[in-house]
Amino acid sequence: MLYIIGLGLCEETDITVKGLEAIKSCEKVYLEAYTSILMVPKENLEKFYGKELIIADREMVESQSDEILLNANSLNIAFLVVGDPFGATTHTDLMIRARELNIPVTVIHNASIMNAIGACGLQLYNFGQTISIPFFTDTWKPDSFYDRIKENRDLGLHTLCLLDIKVKEQSIENLARGKKIYEPPRYMTINKAIQQLLEIEETRNQKVYTAESLAIGIARLGSSTDQQIKVGTLNQLLSQDFGSPLHSLVIVGSRVHILEIDFMRFFAIDKQSYNEIVKKDYDI
Amino acid sequence: MLYIIGLGLCEETDITVKGLEAIKSCEKVYLEAYTSILMVPKENLEKFYGKELIIADREMVESQSDEILLNANSLNIAFLVVGDPFGATTHTDLMIRARELNIPVTVIHNASIMNAIGACGLQLYNFGQTISIPFFTDTWKPDSFYDRIKENRDLGLHTLCLLDIKVKEQSIENLARGKKIYEPPRYMTINKAIQQLLEIEETRNQKVYTAESLAIGIARLGSSTDQQIKVGTLNQLLSQDFGSPLHSLVIVGSRVHILEIDFMRFFAIDKQSYNEIVKKDYDI
Repeated sequence: MLYIIGLGLCEETDITVKGLEAIKSCEKVYLEAYTSILMVPKENLEKFYGKELIIADREMVESQSDEILLNANSLNIAFLVVGDPFGATTHTDLMIRARELNIPVTVIHNASIMNAIGACGLQLYNFGQTISIPFFTDTWKPDSFYDRIKENRDLGLHTLCLLDIKVKEQSIENLARGKKIYEPPRYMTINKAIQQLLEIEETRNQKVYTAESLAIGIARLGSSTDQQIKVGTLNQLLSQDFGSPLHSLVIVGSRVHILEIDFMRFFAIDKQSYNEIVKKDYDI
Repeated sequence: MLYIIGLGLCEETDITVKGLEAIKSCEKVYLEAYTSILMVPKENLEKFYGKELIIADREMVESQSDEILLNANSLNIAFLVVGDPFGATTHTDLMIRARELNIPVTVIHNASIMNAIGACGLQLYNFGQTISIPFFTDTWKPDSFYDRIKENRDLGLHTLCLLDIKVKEQSIENLARGKKIYEPPRYMTINKAIQQLLEIEETRNQKVYTAESLAIGIARLGSSTDQQIKVGTLNQLLSQDFGSPLHSLVIVGSRVHILEIDFMRFFAIDKQSYNEIVKKDYDI
């Protein structure tokens, strides 16, 4: 049996009881460590699970999936994923491959940013499509997210922006030279995401949003000690320090319920300016 | 402290370790039992948690929230919610009320249909807004969901349809006479939802979808023994028996990735007709 187990958002105790029982029954336990991260070191997880973890990087999952699936017909193998197993396309790949090999698969769900984002005070059914903001380079600034945000905003819907993480990436130089030397991990901050959003708005100039648009910065969502949620204009959020990863951003749509307005107020950076924005932009 | 704890999708072991620890520290434990249900009886939960549960119906949560919050400043109180705490508006209400009373609130997240729906093979970022389909009566057929589905489909996006549940509802007669006699609970089936969808398409006639549109029926999502996912046209799904609740429905959009097509094929009611639909409608 292949168990694909969601670990939830932050800490080792975010796993479900069902997930923990499944891990304890497994011969081999892989930890997917490139589409997201937990806030605790691998050693803490190993201690909590009572199992050694094998770190699965992108290369292993994408090109050596048969090795992960080896013997899963007779033994229990666990593949652990931060958040819910269906957050990233790569895990779908692994599931399809397992089915092709007639290996039984059990998925154990958990919270992910895609549903826990409700914590920011906005109703989940008022969200449109979720977008990803990738790290720009000097020469590569993919901006298709701008069209998606426009589609959402034309309907008055909120947009959840997932921010890029780069784990075990090679520099172009090392890649060209075939050197397996990896850069330190990078996690996009809310500040960087806003800079890139405003840069693209300046280029595309379709007034999809402005520096004065209402948004929500969320850091370490689900942490019992350290979660941060701040509401303000993109401009206000730009100068806030949100601390360590992971960060996410929501651009608030125009179709808002009074309960959403009330809930967001608790998180406003500046209550007076929040009330002014609500009065001006939201007619509430 | 008020703990608002997500119970996840199906069984008692779907709770997180963190959630279970929190319950064990509580003096009073309320179970919200009107926006969704778990697949296990209350007694099993009580045994698993080692705590007595107080059933909180809509009336209690909406008009007696201060009673639930009583003493939460000095004692630990738990409010348990099927899925994730932010699935329904009512829980937002309770959180706002607690904040007004300066009661500290800790939210413990879990999987909900809003993220676990990825299990059907579609990528979460290709979903538009989520809609709810209410039970029609002879005289009341609210159809605003039709406009939302249109908005999603115009963008090529998938639509998750949440199906109505009626728990502890009074008949109009008993309501009028002030008799607190409640009807047996009702859970909308996929079949009923499709009937209503097709009825509204016939009335509104904007060709948002047809009986030949591709869709996915999902029953008991997250159950380790009993989950069902079936892919076919609305017409094909109409005659399928999905068994006991809860049911959900996804209307597949036109913007699909080849991986989504491959994954859905595992769940096709009829692989040949699935391949024909994909060829005809999806150009893949």
